[in-house]
Amino acid sequence: MAEHTVKAFDTEIGQLRGLIAEMGGIAEVMIRDAVDALANHDEALGLEVIETDARLDALEAEVDRLAVRVIALRAPMADDLRDVIAALKISGVVERIGDYAKNIAKRVTEMEHSKKLGPLTLVPAMADIAQGMVRDVLNAYGARDADLAVEVIKRDEKLDNFYDSLFRNLVAHMMESPSTISSAAHLLFVARNLERIGDHATNVAEMVYFAATGLYYSEREGGKKDI
Amino acid sequence: MAEHTVKAFDTEIGQLRGLIAEMGGIAEVMIRDAVDALANHDEALGLEVIETDARLDALEAEVDRLAVRVIALRAPMADDLRDVIAALKISGVVERIGDYAKNIAKRVTEMEHSKKLGPLTLVPAMADIAQGMVRDVLNAYGARDADLAVEVIKRDEKLDNFYDSLFRNLVAHMMESPSTISSAAHLLFVARNLERIGDHATNVAEMVYFAATGLYYSEREGGKKDI
Repeated sequence: MAEHTVKAFDTEIGQLRGLIAEMGGIAEVMIRDAVDALANHDEALGLEVIETDARLDALEAEVDRLAVRVIALRAPMADDLRDVIAALKISGVVERIGDYAKNIAKRVTEMEHSKKLGPLTLVPAMADIAQGMVRDVLNAYGARDADLAVEVIKRDEKLDNFYDSLFRNLVAHMMESPSTISSAAHLLFVARNLERIGDHATNVAEMVYFAATGLYYSEREGGKKDI
Repeated sequence: MAEHTVKAFDTEIGQLRGLIAEMGGIAEVMIRDAVDALANHDEALGLEVIETDARLDALEAEVDRLAVRVIALRAPMADDLRDVIAALKISGVVERIGDYAKNIAKRVTEMEHSKKLGPLTLVPAMADIAQGMVRDVLNAYGARDADLAVEVIKRDEKLDNFYDSLFRNLVAHMMESPSTISSAAHLLFVARNLERIGDHATNVAEMVYFAATGLYYSEREGGKKDI
């Protein structure tokens, strides 16, 4: 590519990364607000999260449009092309993370007995882990930091264990207090959504690892095949 | 593009479409087998579904590689580029549909009381709708058939209603038979996974609609904005 084209490409890749960072920031706030809305039964905050999701959809569409334009105009090769494709994929994942947060927010109005549910007190700590994974994986993406990406991947196990323990906790709670079964069922989905957010952050972390090192995470030295 | 390049592009786009059709076929079988495994408590069949998911991952990686190669070598413009990007996105969605089927299959071993659960008998009918949506939306993609895509989108409401009714049914069941709560909780997730498969088929249908008509589904004449 000619000098001025290279500069234009760098500017555009910078724009793509900026849009994704913005999406990540919004998704993080959505996770925190959704869980706060649930913990405090704050329907107005829940509604705000639901409405914010449209902003994430619009940003994803903007990433798509810009990525297609960059490919069409600059015809990037090899690493540069992979960078643009990664932006396309990561924006899609962040948009889905927002969907999970929206899904949590939607349950605020459905959980009338929420304040009585003991296991609800565990959810904010679980959300902290998920939110931290989203924040750090997008920092790792911005800085092409493979070590931070690996760190995020390892944290997913902690989140999975949290989910398993919350699942058992909720089932036990349902057996003891059948009147809270409906609310507890909603809380099961909330826990599941947080666990899925961690899975998606892990997927992004694996993409970041690959982009930074050229190796698949499962193929790294000392690593084992993750299924 | 020169004549021979055009032909090469058509061949490659055909390959992309072929790979996606193959992925769709596998995802369909996974949905049916996962639900059959659950209904008949067939652990071997469940394991088969779990193992098949790796094939879907491999095909998605193949779509990615081929799409990147097509973009790099042929530098397609406008509609052709959009076609390649659509292939990238749709393969990602079909892979996630496979994840949901795998998730259902994983619950076969965890639901020991499955045969006693009345609401389980409703799951195969719900799975039929989800499976039909996946089949038809991929046919719509292959044939660029906007009408069939609209038909798939409309069917999603039926699936959502099915899910809502199954949710209420399962919660009522939990209250009546606390000993089945753990299995019923797993079944809640199964229903939710089927509902999400429908959402993903709907997303693909909207992409197909856009590709075939140049209009967003929500902007169509007589249509309303779907939130």
